[in-house]
Amino acid sequence: MATDFRRKEQLSELTDLIVDSYQDIGTINHLGHCPLPSSLEIVEVLQDLTEILYPGYRRRQNLHMGNVTYYVGDLIDGLHDRLTQQIARALRFEFDRLHGSDCDKKKAIDFEAQGQELAINFLECLPELRRMLALDVQAAYEGDPAACGLDEIIFCYPGLEAITVHRIAHELHRRKVPLIPRIMSEWVHSRTGIDIHPGAQIGPSFFIDHGTGVVIGETCEIAGHVKIYQSVTLGALSFPRDEQGNIVRNTKRHPTIEEGVVIYSNATVLGGDTVIGANSVIGAGVSLTRSVEPNTIVTVEKPSLRFREAS
Amino acid sequence: MATDFRRKEQLSELTDLIVDSYQDIGTINHLGHCPLPSSLEIVEVLQDLTEILYPGYRRRQNLHMGNVTYYVGDLIDGLHDRLTQQIARALRFEFDRLHGSDCDKKKAIDFEAQGQELAINFLECLPELRRMLALDVQAAYEGDPAACGLDEIIFCYPGLEAITVHRIAHELHRRKVPLIPRIMSEWVHSRTGIDIHPGAQIGPSFFIDHGTGVVIGETCEIAGHVKIYQSVTLGALSFPRDEQGNIVRNTKRHPTIEEGVVIYSNATVLGGDTVIGANSVIGAGVSLTRSVEPNTIVTVEKPSLRFREAS
Amino acid sequence: MATDFRRKEQLSELTDLIVDSYQDIGTINHLGHCPLPSSLEIVEVLQDLTEILYPGYRRRQNLHMGNVTYYVGDLIDGLHDRLTQQIARALRFEFDRLHGSDCDKKKAIDFEAQGQELAINFLECLPELRRMLALDVQAAYEGDPAACGLDEIIFCYPGLEAITVHRIAHELHRRKVPLIPRIMSEWVHSRTGIDIHPGAQIGPSFFIDHGTGVVIGETCEIAGHVKIYQSVTLGALSFPRDEQGNIVRNTKRHPTIEEGVVIYSNATVLGGDTVIGANSVIGAGVSLTRSVEPNTIVTVEKPSLRFREAS
Repeated sequence: MATDFRRKEQLSELTDLIVDSYQDIGTINHLGHCPLPSSLEIVEVLQDLTEILYPGYRRRQNLHMGNVTYYVGDLIDGLHDRLTQQIARALRFEFDRLHGSDCDKKKAIDFEAQGQELAINFLECLPELRRMLALDVQAAYEGDPAACGLDEIIFCYPGLEAITVHRIAHELHRRKVPLIPRIMSEWVHSRTGIDIHPGAQIGPSFFIDHGTGVVIGETCEIAGHVKIYQSVTLGALSFPRDEQGNIVRNTKRHPTIEEGVVIYSNATVLGGDTVIGANSVIGAGVSLTRSVEPNTIVTVEKPSLRFREAS
Repeated sequence: MATDFRRKEQLSELTDLIVDSYQDIGTINHLGHCPLPSSLEIVEVLQDLTEILYPGYRRRQNLHMGNVTYYVGDLIDGLHDRLTQQIARALRFEFDRLHGSDCDKKKAIDFEAQGQELAINFLECLPELRRMLALDVQAAYEGDPAACGLDEIIFCYPGLEAITVHRIAHELHRRKVPLIPRIMSEWVHSRTGIDIHPGAQIGPSFFIDHGTGVVIGETCEIAGHVKIYQSVTLGALSFPRDEQGNIVRNTKRHPTIEEGVVIYSNATVLGGDTVIGANSVIGAGVSLTRSVEPNTIVTVEKPSLRFREAS
Repeated sequence: MATDFRRKEQLSELTDLIVDSYQDIGTINHLGHCPLPSSLEIVEVLQDLTEILYPGYRRRQNLHMGNVTYYVGDLIDGLHDRLTQQIARALRFEFDRLHGSDCDKKKAIDFEAQGQELAINFLECLPELRRMLALDVQAAYEGDPAACGLDEIIFCYPGLEAITVHRIAHELHRRKVPLIPRIMSEWVHSRTGIDIHPGAQIGPSFFIDHGTGVVIGETCEIAGHVKIYQSVTLGALSFPRDEQGNIVRNTKRHPTIEEGVVIYSNATVLGGDTVIGANSVIGAGVSLTRSVEPNTIVTVEKPSLRFREAS
């Protein structure tokens, strides 16, 4: 009982066929001398940022006011270098995508300098990000009777992990960094089941409980103190298409949620013109495609249920 | 095209601003000399426990009756040390949270001894846990026509992974170990999309199929032979608040599910007084906020669907 | 404050009790000299396959036509060895499960040779797989107005990750490789929340958007150009049982979806005889257990919603 190693010789033919397919089907390989951003590096960037935003909770233990400056200073130094490199790659790649890789203008652009500018500009918003995230943690504590304290929320609430990565990704998206914000948002989607597009605008004191299945679309606008439960969709109603039948991108397709709204599990709110007025409550399973006045409670009229005895 | 390294000098100012924010916004950092439990350690504890509960399926191959005692003995030895340390940290941390870190009583408490007591006490329930989990594996095989054998279930069923971690976390929760059970339950929530609070009481022969989106709240009571499908919520109806408007914690807020009940996908059962009687079947998409007699089949009266031809 | 190390001596008794339980409760341990497939190895196989299918996007950077042949050739060589070993283990294990480990016929079977045959046969379909996956990437781009380009889809769309692993797992399932396809499908289920059984037959240009909570059952047949949103279930209606009350396995239990169908979020289509005709649109939240003619739009008649002012 053994493998026949002579049969391995035919594998070189297979390798050639696969490599040929990189020319025939060139849309799903990236070969050449212009490296793409690296998903692995971007995940490490997120993990380092989390260490800075919530020090003492994750990787590094025994931090105190006597050593935390060294720790944070070292992380910031590394983040500067990594973000500069990754953003420069994303910018060069986006340029090629829009203008072709042989475009003459390319030589005149200093992608590294732009990457560094954006990296530093982003890092400077970290103190403000901490201020926002402290409000999100507080909102989670006030919104969940099962929470035993702020620490439990920082340690393990998926809703906090999702909004943390979203606020990071959104800052990069606002600065028009290509690709990287989406790699971040899909990474946390994978970990939490919560899918927030980096373009979504979300106000302070935001809380998602449980969270699996939540979808928040690119052009949503969400005000402060909003609370959302698992499997809520804030989505698009339909896509406008141009005369050639192509999808029109970059229109407001997703709803606006005003201050203090609560949306219970499995509710669906669709459409770019749909506005849920302040302090409204959208009940579980409600499906809305039109606006609701402030202070409104919307529930499903109980659907008739059928009860019968098991035979 | 190059990074301007002189600009890195301004990063020390940013580091100072961030460190200042650890004093201004002190709620989301943990600095000091009292280390928290480590999520990474707790995940390793879960992985070692899984090796003991289902030997031969995961990390270590080629186990047989001649060597398995050494392997298990070594794992148990390490688990004793790690669990003792992590539980001691969790207890000290919980004490600080409730009484303040300068409380005089603290010196009189031997957190390590308490941690060891709880660790050993927990480890001693492993043979009984295996007995329970063997019933869960059997229930999955009997409940899913796509399953080809018990091994497939142990290898890769997310529902089994979720109930395995739940039964571990619940044993620690019952012993009033703080924080660690929730870190465990959110870790497996991340991996499976199944969110079971460690406080939930779940009887033998439990099966969750597919599982993504399932939420089982803290005060649920579930009897034996219950079967649940994806996106089922066993949740709270509303939160009682005290006179100051604060959420009241620690009341029975989640339903009771009796022996032999089946709950199909997307059904929602809410409320601490809601009891689903034995051997009832709750159909897909049903939403219940009141009790159901034993042996009842509840289905949604078919909502009117609208059929029209595509233009 | 210290751990009492003398108490560790009692742990050897606990170890003995646990090892005893491997004999009493033998259904959930695998001890012996016939190693199982390794989940860790199978995950590495998937990661290597992804490098070949989408070169330049993940692990290895700076690939170009001058070096990619070496890279792919080396990966293929390793995949041959690993797949041969893992498939041989799965085949031997399946044989033991069906015939008992002492069956006389076993000596006559060369599991390694069968494993190698299946491994090479599978690897030879990689160029064709790339052709299919290029169509899936294009379908995602055409179906999502938030997508900025094909690269974003390859980098981070969970729907693409799920269909990529499904097409791999399905090729192995078609060749009757036991266990391994299911380990693959549950691995990607964990990462994406999308649960596709390897047995499902899925045509070209398939797109799942967002994806969390999607369930596609073992005997589904899905034609080309189908688009599915989050939390759609294509499931079984009920399980036929034989005269002894055991579940009957291997019947067509899941629906057929024809060319060009779109199924919106939270819709449920159940039953092995249910056929959704070509170019039909199934609206969000629709629940169907019977067939629909081609070109039909099915929506939920708006359930009565109740609007009242918050007190």
